[in-house]
Amino acid sequence: MAHTGENPLDVERRQSALPARELTYVLWKSKEHAELRERLEALLVKDPAFDNKKMDYLSRNEAYARALRMAGKVEIIARQNRLNEYETEQLRLVFQAFTSCSSPTTLHTLMFIKNLALLFTEEQQQKWVQLAKDCRMVGCYAQTELGHGSNVRGLETTATFIPETDEFEIHSPTLSSIKWWPGALGRTANFGVVYARMIIHGKDYGVHNFMVQLREFDTHETRPGVMCGDIGAKVGFNNVDNGYCKFDRVRIPRENMGMRFSTVDRNGKYSKNRSVPHEVLYFTMLQTRMGFVLSSGLSLGKAVTISVRYSAVRAQGYDAKDESKELKVIDYQSQQYRLLPLVAASYAITLTGNQMDAFTEVLSKQIDSGDVSKLDIAHAMSCGLKVVSTDAAAAGMEICRRACGGHGYLLASGIPTLLNDMVQMVTAEGENFVLSLQTARTLLKGLKAFRSGVKLPKEMAFLANIDKSFPPQTRTKSNWLEPQHYVSAFQQRFLYLLRDLEQRVSRASSVPVGVQENSVLCYKLTMAYGKLLLVSNFASAIASPATFSKLPLSTPRILEVVRLLSHLFALTQLDADAGEFMACGAILPSDLAVIRATIEELLPLIRPHAVVLVDAFNFSDHALNSALGRYDGNVYQALYDSAQQDDVNQSSDKIALHEFLLPIRNALQSRL
Amino acid sequence: MAHTGENPLDVERRQSALPARELTYVLWKSKEHAELRERLEALLVKDPAFDNKKMDYLSRNEAYARALRMAGKVEIIARQNRLNEYETEQLRLVFQAFTSCSSPTTLHTLMFIKNLALLFTEEQQQKWVQLAKDCRMVGCYAQTELGHGSNVRGLETTATFIPETDEFEIHSPTLSSIKWWPGALGRTANFGVVYARMIIHGKDYGVHNFMVQLREFDTHETRPGVMCGDIGAKVGFNNVDNGYCKFDRVRIPRENMGMRFSTVDRNGKYSKNRSVPHEVLYFTMLQTRMGFVLSSGLSLGKAVTISVRYSAVRAQGYDAKDESKELKVIDYQSQQYRLLPLVAASYAITLTGNQMDAFTEVLSKQIDSGDVSKLDIAHAMSCGLKVVSTDAAAAGMEICRRACGGHGYLLASGIPTLLNDMVQMVTAEGENFVLSLQTARTLLKGLKAFRSGVKLPKEMAFLANIDKSFPPQTRTKSNWLEPQHYVSAFQQRFLYLLRDLEQRVSRASSVPVGVQENSVLCYKLTMAYGKLLLVSNFASAIASPATFSKLPLSTPRILEVVRLLSHLFALTQLDADAGEFMACGAILPSDLAVIRATIEELLPLIRPHAVVLVDAFNFSDHALNSALGRYDGNVYQALYDSAQQDDVNQSSDKIALHEFLLPIRNALQSRL
Repeated sequence: MAHTGENPLDVERRQSALPARELTYVLWKSKEHAELRERLEALLVKDPAFDNKKMDYLSRNEAYARALRMAGKVEIIARQNRLNEYETEQLRLVFQAFTSCSSPTTLHTLMFIKNLALLFTEEQQQKWVQLAKDCRMVGCYAQTELGHGSNVRGLETTATFIPETDEFEIHSPTLSSIKWWPGALGRTANFGVVYARMIIHGKDYGVHNFMVQLREFDTHETRPGVMCGDIGAKVGFNNVDNGYCKFDRVRIPRENMGMRFSTVDRNGKYSKNRSVPHEVLYFTMLQTRMGFVLSSGLSLGKAVTISVRYSAVRAQGYDAKDESKELKVIDYQSQQYRLLPLVAASYAITLTGNQMDAFTEVLSKQIDSGDVSKLDIAHAMSCGLKVVSTDAAAAGMEICRRACGGHGYLLASGIPTLLNDMVQMVTAEGENFVLSLQTARTLLKGLKAFRSGVKLPKEMAFLANIDKSFPPQTRTKSNWLEPQHYVSAFQQRFLYLLRDLEQRVSRASSVPVGVQENSVLCYKLTMAYGKLLLVSNFASAIASPATFSKLPLSTPRILEVVRLLSHLFALTQLDADAGEFMACGAILPSDLAVIRATIEELLPLIRPHAVVLVDAFNFSDHALNSALGRYDGNVYQALYDSAQQDDVNQSSDKIALHEFLLPIRNALQSRL
Repeated sequence: MAHTGENPLDVERRQSALPARELTYVLWKSKEHAELRERLEALLVKDPAFDNKKMDYLSRNEAYARALRMAGKVEIIARQNRLNEYETEQLRLVFQAFTSCSSPTTLHTLMFIKNLALLFTEEQQQKWVQLAKDCRMVGCYAQTELGHGSNVRGLETTATFIPETDEFEIHSPTLSSIKWWPGALGRTANFGVVYARMIIHGKDYGVHNFMVQLREFDTHETRPGVMCGDIGAKVGFNNVDNGYCKFDRVRIPRENMGMRFSTVDRNGKYSKNRSVPHEVLYFTMLQTRMGFVLSSGLSLGKAVTISVRYSAVRAQGYDAKDESKELKVIDYQSQQYRLLPLVAASYAITLTGNQMDAFTEVLSKQIDSGDVSKLDIAHAMSCGLKVVSTDAAAAGMEICRRACGGHGYLLASGIPTLLNDMVQMVTAEGENFVLSLQTARTLLKGLKAFRSGVKLPKEMAFLANIDKSFPPQTRTKSNWLEPQHYVSAFQQRFLYLLRDLEQRVSRASSVPVGVQENSVLCYKLTMAYGKLLLVSNFASAIASPATFSKLPLSTPRILEVVRLLSHLFALTQLDADAGEFMACGAILPSDLAVIRATIEELLPLIRPHAVVLVDAFNFSDHALNSALGRYDGNVYQALYDSAQQDDVNQSSDKIALHEFLLPIRNALQSRL
């Protein structure tokens, strides 16, 4: 039966009695930050441009136009409300998070403007910064090509110095050199930072950056020699015009070369600028990658919100002990087993993401002051966490979708759109397998430094145990509810894989050869490292006074439940990789039954709080855009209403009659 | 660099020298069957209705119309070419497989017509069979409702007997009783078999079937009281109008009740027809579920074809031993580790699917002759294999998609569409977690029968070892290349889980309670059972003379490579669940390093044959509809051409100018 009368979710909320609001402050870093985001979201929601009722039924072209309209409104609303720079940036982030999808101009407003200072000299910036801030100039990064992605060395586009006119000539010499994938390149950007091999007097100086105007300011027509287009429909991110561009000998002034790291003078003389540390450039990529951690956690948070709420509304089957009692889906052990570890994972990743944000801020100040001592460990952490967070979030969302049964297959459920956008993060900003090679190399480098006597950074202190042999240890059920036990198992597994890689690489002719020939082990090592970081960060977030100290009340009750999530997260991860833990002696074969029994005992302890735990993410119905995940639990009405938004239900054309029934009828008759 | 000159795939083909064509006959059951399908596909491809160049760029409405147009052509082509019944059915299957997506009428032509004989008496069939064959009548099954899916007991639609007029009145009493999900209900079908609670003289007789006319024959207008629509955009299957229907006291003749299993007479007297065995109904569902195995294997076969071919074309990075040598993606160990186990899985599932088809045929004959002795084991096998095959195929396709890097995110890659259609199979025809409860119950029933002395069917003979304690066994690397070793490890793991469940259930107040309270274990048991079946069926397919004996030549060379795939499949599955195997003593912790080393040694042995192994699936470029998976390897031109099919590249509207640039410009100016 459909629920009548009281919202079943309110019943859940009353029974838990956990203060969701205070957990919100934990997940969103602070009370102030959570409230700021709510205020900014309210500014957007009241504008009709942000209405999302028809969102699942738009063509790509309509979705693109809607995204641009909203993005324009964001800029206008920021100015109308005289928001300061920080608030404006937050407003853009709220817009991105709450529409569940980027606008084609997100890259421009959130990165391009800032990064002008990265690649170009102050003199060069003068020309463009105000234009970019006023959105007269909208930029994109034209790096990847049809034939080459992240491998910069393989790029084919050329920028040839023309001494006669003091210009560079940008050219696409082959089909595979066509720029392909850059966001906003297809139809939106009027400028692009183009990555091209610089040729001066016949000599190839390798890949450099060039600012190229792609379209006219006033008419938005492409400039002569520039051929742009959209690369076609994608799994997700269809708001964004990922584009292609073929350059046919396009001339730009020599001064449009990015001259911060190196310069070319009027005579074509090339010089490197050694006073600017390359780490700065490197740090920007690291920061972007670190940002993926928090956004993975929050995206997974949306999916579990939808799936847990729906599971607490949906009736399915009967209690085997009392055949008259219809159960909610979430009452089943198997449904709890699917969803509650994902609630735990969304907390683990989100809290780790918050920690990484804070860490990156500290790092940024260190680098500004010339201290790059933490850059390697930060690099390894950002890679490892990016790989494991994006992978876990994507896999978790698909489980959430399936846990909604048939209705999860409808776009109206809200999860498919989230998932389709999420899966690109597995490939973007360093494909996960490629990143794992970098992670492994950095970890090996750290290990080598340690062996040569360099002091370990505190984030890596446990590496000192690399050669220790751990005696087999029988653990009781209560041991498995103590973070030091599971964290140490994750450390031991990681050290075992790292030492294995070290030994294999030592037998190879060089480190690069050793890494390349053992790329499978590098991937396993990276996953082990990322999981260790999540498990230990979750445990330390709970132990740390910084996380919970600012809460006005209820800390002990909240902590008690969040601690159960930490255990559940660690133990389900242990279960998933149990063979590897056993192979290295971190756990015993007999431990698995204990671990699984402990998981089965944790589920019913967490289940009463499931709805409140997801409420704490504080996603509005507007941000979730899900018929199944509504706060009021009125899911069937919402599904029905959503279908009415589909244009096919407004039309009275009889396609089946004209395309199928009549043609067959006519064919049959004509044979008579 | 893009390849110039020779197709790199032809280089691969030459180097392997394995006869792909003969493997095709193995995968497609026989030479005759493979050739029939090719002939039938040729009939379709030459008709312009089947052109698929724009397929990735259609709106849902256009895709729906195109699917109906093609489906109509299929029926007309079958008649024009005077195909017999078998060939016509094959033509419909070819159409479905080769367009990668069902038509709204697939259910009608492939199932509804046949199933009329299942639910209705011969007298009733007389009225409808010819209409259905001529496609004047197009049917659907209206079972699931907004509030209840597979749980038939919870359905709310009523069919009330009206003695005065000798009619049934079909009615939807609540919002949650609206029929929701049935394929073709939204806009296509003019008839539906409606599942409704039958009420006679105030008494509820439970759910029965009723034939209800939904739309007029000639105008296709809905009949009075029938309110139909499409349930909205979905993850995939958007060719099909899954629909909703609300009945407002719709009257149908009493004789439209499905009267084969029970009847209602003129006076409202209800009687069961005990002469018709219910197993027949049950067998139809079983057959559908078994069919999912083969289609999962073939769909995964398409995805690995695309991904392996692209990986053998795509250049990425350099050989660490020779920095001037650019590598193909497939040359990397990690890429082989991602893809080759999936090639192996596609073979395992496809060959098992073929075996299950043959088994189901035998079963069908047995049931017709009154022998239902194998029905239980067939039920358990169909559930276990459905769960594990759909799950493995869906997960495998996503890995294939990611293994194509960024380009895999484009619909033009062909994989997203395959995957989006595939993931519904995880939920449809018995959601995988729900099915696992059925599997567990059936397995427990079989075990109980064995314990009470009933002879085990040969498919379950190993159950006799249920109480045996297996001594720990140290296995060498060469042991792991012998099927009896790995098959026995899978048996031992399965028996361990089954005995665990048996013991837990024995402690519960009843079997249903025990199963419900241990649903997580039921799921693990079902997965273990399904994997055992795949591993042992793959091994037995290779050992069986029936599989390979009809090949004209080359059997030994083919067998040698396919045997490597069997090992790789089994060992990667062992690795994935290693902890569970260790916990029950089926393998030792020290085995994992050996298993992983063996996997790493198998990869380079299979890699030279990778392209030929996927060529053997014999999917045409038309059926793959993938820019990345083309037989000729010309991927970059194909990607570029595909983007040109997108209407957004044909339009010259300046959306960015009008929706973003100008509004901001105007707002900034108006503030001056």
